[in-house]
Amino acid sequence: MNIKEKFGFKVKQLRERKGFSIEYLANISNVDRTYISDIEKGKRNVSIQIMEKIILALDADFIEFFNDNNFKK
Amino acid sequence: MNIKEKFGFKVKQLRERKGFSIEYLANISNVDRTYISDIEKGKRNVSIQIMEKIILALDADFIEFFNDNNFKK
Repeated sequence: MNIKEKFGFKVKQLRERKGFSIEYLANISNVDRTYISDIEKGKRNVSIQIMEKIILALDADFIEFFNDNNFKK
Repeated sequence: MNIKEKFGFKVKQLRERKGFSIEYLANISNVDRTYISDIEKGKRNVSIQIMEKIILALDADFIEFFNDNNFKK
């Protein structure tokens, strides 16, 4: 997986773990629903500000979000 | 600090810790020197692909880079 795919995979994993629909995550993060869907598919070169909106909406922070062996180099 | 500033601060900290100049980091990461300078000042809404180039050039990965209390929410 490239970094865009790794990021999207983790977003989807945390979103599903919290029982959130894409629509709900879109509403609480204030990021467009289709944009979140594309992120989860690894299609978007997401910016740090969008990352922050999504990570906070998932009740996480950058420390927790990236503390995952999938992000090992 | 906002998230762009936190990211820039950490880049600068790791770069200086490694004894790299901005010019050297620019060369090994393949990111423009002025862009890195702006990132360190917290002026850039950097993308995940640029983040990866810089983090890898600093001999780190996303896990290590964000494992810092400064990124606590």
